[in-house]
Amino acid sequence: MIIVMKPDSQEAQIKEISNVLESLGLGIHISKGTERTIIGVIGDKRVLSDVPIELMPGVEKLVPIVESFKLAGKTFKPEPSVIDVNGVKIGGKELVIMAGPCAVESREQIIEAAQAVKKSGAQFLRGGAYKPRTSPYAFQGLEEEGLKLLKEAKDATGLLVITEVTSEKAVEVADKYVEMFQIGARNVQNFQLLREIGRSKKPVLFKRGPSTTIDEWLNAAEYIMSEGNYNVVLCERGIRTFETATRNTLDLSAVPVVKNLSHLPIIVDPSHAAGKVQYVAPLSKAAIASGADGLIVEVHPNPRCALSDAAQQLTPENFDNLCKDISKIAEVLGREFKYDAK
Amino acid sequence: MIIVMKPDSQEAQIKEISNVLESLGLGIHISKGTERTIIGVIGDKRVLSDVPIELMPGVEKLVPIVESFKLAGKTFKPEPSVIDVNGVKIGGKELVIMAGPCAVESREQIIEAAQAVKKSGAQFLRGGAYKPRTSPYAFQGLEEEGLKLLKEAKDATGLLVITEVTSEKAVEVADKYVEMFQIGARNVQNFQLLREIGRSKKPVLFKRGPSTTIDEWLNAAEYIMSEGNYNVVLCERGIRTFETATRNTLDLSAVPVVKNLSHLPIIVDPSHAAGKVQYVAPLSKAAIASGADGLIVEVHPNPRCALSDAAQQLTPENFDNLCKDISKIAEVLGREFKYDAK
Amino acid sequence: MIIVMKPDSQEAQIKEISNVLESLGLGIHISKGTERTIIGVIGDKRVLSDVPIELMPGVEKLVPIVESFKLAGKTFKPEPSVIDVNGVKIGGKELVIMAGPCAVESREQIIEAAQAVKKSGAQFLRGGAYKPRTSPYAFQGLEEEGLKLLKEAKDATGLLVITEVTSEKAVEVADKYVEMFQIGARNVQNFQLLREIGRSKKPVLFKRGPSTTIDEWLNAAEYIMSEGNYNVVLCERGIRTFETATRNTLDLSAVPVVKNLSHLPIIVDPSHAAGKVQYVAPLSKAAIASGADGLIVEVHPNPRCALSDAAQQLTPENFDNLCKDISKIAEVLGREFKYDAK
Amino acid sequence: MIIVMKPDSQEAQIKEISNVLESLGLGIHISKGTERTIIGVIGDKRVLSDVPIELMPGVEKLVPIVESFKLAGKTFKPEPSVIDVNGVKIGGKELVIMAGPCAVESREQIIEAAQAVKKSGAQFLRGGAYKPRTSPYAFQGLEEEGLKLLKEAKDATGLLVITEVTSEKAVEVADKYVEMFQIGARNVQNFQLLREIGRSKKPVLFKRGPSTTIDEWLNAAEYIMSEGNYNVVLCERGIRTFETATRNTLDLSAVPVVKNLSHLPIIVDPSHAAGKVQYVAPLSKAAIASGADGLIVEVHPNPRCALSDAAQQLTPENFDNLCKDISKIAEVLGREFKYDAK
Repeated sequence: MIIVMKPDSQEAQIKEISNVLESLGLGIHISKGTERTIIGVIGDKRVLSDVPIELMPGVEKLVPIVESFKLAGKTFKPEPSVIDVNGVKIGGKELVIMAGPCAVESREQIIEAAQAVKKSGAQFLRGGAYKPRTSPYAFQGLEEEGLKLLKEAKDATGLLVITEVTSEKAVEVADKYVEMFQIGARNVQNFQLLREIGRSKKPVLFKRGPSTTIDEWLNAAEYIMSEGNYNVVLCERGIRTFETATRNTLDLSAVPVVKNLSHLPIIVDPSHAAGKVQYVAPLSKAAIASGADGLIVEVHPNPRCALSDAAQQLTPENFDNLCKDISKIAEVLGREFKYDAK
Repeated sequence: MIIVMKPDSQEAQIKEISNVLESLGLGIHISKGTERTIIGVIGDKRVLSDVPIELMPGVEKLVPIVESFKLAGKTFKPEPSVIDVNGVKIGGKELVIMAGPCAVESREQIIEAAQAVKKSGAQFLRGGAYKPRTSPYAFQGLEEEGLKLLKEAKDATGLLVITEVTSEKAVEVADKYVEMFQIGARNVQNFQLLREIGRSKKPVLFKRGPSTTIDEWLNAAEYIMSEGNYNVVLCERGIRTFETATRNTLDLSAVPVVKNLSHLPIIVDPSHAAGKVQYVAPLSKAAIASGADGLIVEVHPNPRCALSDAAQQLTPENFDNLCKDISKIAEVLGREFKYDAK
Repeated sequence: MIIVMKPDSQEAQIKEISNVLESLGLGIHISKGTERTIIGVIGDKRVLSDVPIELMPGVEKLVPIVESFKLAGKTFKPEPSVIDVNGVKIGGKELVIMAGPCAVESREQIIEAAQAVKKSGAQFLRGGAYKPRTSPYAFQGLEEEGLKLLKEAKDATGLLVITEVTSEKAVEVADKYVEMFQIGARNVQNFQLLREIGRSKKPVLFKRGPSTTIDEWLNAAEYIMSEGNYNVVLCERGIRTFETATRNTLDLSAVPVVKNLSHLPIIVDPSHAAGKVQYVAPLSKAAIASGADGLIVEVHPNPRCALSDAAQQLTPENFDNLCKDISKIAEVLGREFKYDAK
Repeated sequence: MIIVMKPDSQEAQIKEISNVLESLGLGIHISKGTERTIIGVIGDKRVLSDVPIELMPGVEKLVPIVESFKLAGKTFKPEPSVIDVNGVKIGGKELVIMAGPCAVESREQIIEAAQAVKKSGAQFLRGGAYKPRTSPYAFQGLEEEGLKLLKEAKDATGLLVITEVTSEKAVEVADKYVEMFQIGARNVQNFQLLREIGRSKKPVLFKRGPSTTIDEWLNAAEYIMSEGNYNVVLCERGIRTFETATRNTLDLSAVPVVKNLSHLPIIVDPSHAAGKVQYVAPLSKAAIASGADGLIVEVHPNPRCALSDAAQQLTPENFDNLCKDISKIAEVLGREFKYDAK
């Protein structure tokens, strides 16, 4: 961290700050420029997280030099992490596709969806049992009943199951039924929930919030990891911008940026970002081309009857075509995706 | 709601949609323009919230005509709501000021802060016991111990107490100590928590999220109100934009916009929006001039020793000057604030 | 267009509005819902562009039904446009790559860059002679001298030349030297300049502005097209958002959205969006995978000596690797790019 | 400026950078931390504006310490500037109000508007003769004819006249008719136009662009000032955000931020920010309370007949009430506005 002093700061002020830093065990390095004096702070800056240096007399501003997250960062672990979920590896050579309906609606629907996405090569079945909806008057999910149906679909197909959890209670219940948790965009800074997930050790797909910077997102991942759960897979799903042609603006730059800053795998959710089914396939291909480790895509056996987010769910046929294309692009990029339609 | 058909849509498609709408008890009104046919839908559109009309053949898009929130809207209740918290009325002629430190740190600190803000005319003491922090390595609050200290400060001064709650458990605990809950910006769409608050009936200050539109915010308020708690006070606290000179961009337009759409009172938090103490006073005055019903402001007896958000906390002296100015501006605007420094 | 009346609007007000519309030759269609009356307006709404219907008594708001651009839209021309620039077709099966340094700096630099990008398969040489820079103290371009050097590089390699024009005078001068104009992001709504380009008929690459919605961008293209120049190629180059890890947020959703709304070709500029060289290749591949018709990429023979935007310029070697990858991805997507390195 | 080296940077790389800096006449100061080595650069960093230090081996990033603008900054001139326009002082104790219709439409309209705004205390008449409009099919202004009418209105009332200029040609023509130029939001980085204004020396109202940071805005002002025209008045008019309830989000924080960074006066345009007439008065009062030096407000003798932006223009009666309120708020704030309605 660097402390930039005001143009009119005085010797005594610099001395006072130096004393505070030294009393905390930090080293200092003073540099006098033509317009400003700056103080470089040397050592573990976490001791400063609750000391308001910025209010000391003569201080203009603080400039951070290293990122504030640790466990999620490359300094802590330079080589990429591969998260193993019951034998399926996320972040390795093979691309991982999670697919299924927005919400679990019925036994028939979820089994049909599972069979369809399995056939095209998906390794995970997704399906919401707890649905956070903008309006309290919309369908909110089947809760535990939905989890049971997901388990049935898994038993029928061998797919792994991922589902969103929205509260500590949901974590506890879902833990019995699924192989991977999902933290949704709205809960990216629900720190209570993150700590709970951190304590569970189960792999988690951690979505970026619509107004979360990449730096804040990695700091939020730190809440999970600092409780001991290192099985975190990131998921870019669009950020909120002024553009209204799509529901959110998918930030594919986040893929190479995350690869640069962190060792965690990252996949992409094109369905929620686009909000419209015709944009899902082009954005899925773009996501893979940008270097993502996989996709989470909404597929519904009959989108026109879906109870939530109907507009963004692919048909099994669209999904099958997409998987075929992904497997070819994967090859060009030196990666792999087994498209297995018979 | 209006259904806009594609330029090449066909009679049979319009007929099919009409049948669906009529089977749900909705009226329809078809209008053929030179470029598009549109279908007006008449009746309670909530029956459509889980019917994916936008996927029916021939449909280009849906255009909502009335807002999706009900209880928070002016159609439901045209006259402004006044929320009574133990005799202090929010949303009436009198302006309400909530002030105190970002976090409760010690008995001495909170009592000293309470006495100072009381002296300048504040009606509420604020102070965080559960602190959501971006980094897991920063001070997270004293929890129940902090709530007890807030209660002591209240007993010593007669101020009402407001505190942020971040989980269902915190709601349960805080309920014994405080007169008003606060839902922070990060939890604006934590629907589990909103429902819990809805069931409690205790007045709640409901902050806008950094990327929440006013429409979404009022829909989120609906989660609280639809559980039976109508004692909701809104709080604008800045939205996330590209500008980095301030922590967030305080959206004061939200004040007249909310007054136009909703009957709920609205106050403003200039401290979190600005993130820097020197901008708090000008933005506080601007907030009142824009028509806000009050302020929530961070004041610390000794900001240079604060354990969180030090940079944005006023000294008691700054706060006293601000209250004096607010009381004069209130008068010009036909409102009232009793500045009582002796 | 639809006129939504206020809940308490009166018969006489609806009658008054109807009279105004009919006097302008427009048809009307009145629909009374349970909460609102709406008036559908039938006919060419351009006669309304200067009539403030929204201020007439009883009116709550206007809701547009069809887009306001015409010549750029698919209703006007459903099949995709292919722009022919001296035999190179933009928007057809073949992908087009424009490459070269941010700014023309010297004869040696531009010839070397041209030879390098030619070798990897680029069809166009790019290079700035008029550089709009954020600070007036930075290098502003060689102006006509730079254009002459571009012409030399073209004569030496056979590449077509594209350059940015920033004023009516620059259009006039550059017209003698280049095959295609570029309108930069900062001039997306410099309507004087757009009209001037419209009158010139020369093909133009029209960049989106950092805060321009797709709808506004297509309306701005309309300024060029309504003067008679239909040779417009769009270029997505990132929008301004809260995220600071990249200079701008590349909005690749814009590619399928534009393909959905307009017949104009669209290419992508990953260099300006990312602002950092290590993100250019992944974003280039993602752009092609999303359906873009080509790329415009910054390549400098020696980036470490570049006079502007050094951080985002590829070396010839990086560029060559990128072109090789692009040619393989093109094939998977049913497109074509001739990578010709010998 | 500070150069942050990568964690694995080497001695020889630091040495190489030091040599480059020293050869440019800059001083250096090396500081080795626990995680990074940083190099402080001492001297006039403008010599570095075209040297790509960020690409040198071992460099992670550059961190600017002082702002890049000079003439617009407080370091250059600590005391506030007061701009004198024919005796009316902008930036002094007295608040300045510029008012009038969006566009000049006819002699009758502009004279009537001028008389009305004069009566309520405005010192300037505003009125557009060159109108940049989103759609090429909307009314574009009366051009020189409009300027002549503005001059007539000025002769009739004694008001000073301000008008927007959109091209070098418009500057030349308008120079004969008006006392102050306005640069609109869309031209905030039209550097050709800014330089032209810089050469003219006539006072200029310089609006912020919808996606311009305050730092970029002050850098753009530098284009005007570096040509010798120091008579620059800034104007905040809303930025583009995700919120759609208002046309733009008025960023009133910009007022105290600009006062903190720059000596230039700043006024506020609530009409364009809000886009709706009912929000203009609350935002005007808020702007003054935030510390702005004045307002530019749209007033039309008969808004319902206006040819552009009808929805945001006040009636003379609304404007008169607003001026009365402003004069009272001014007094509370220790400023002054002469409301003179008879």
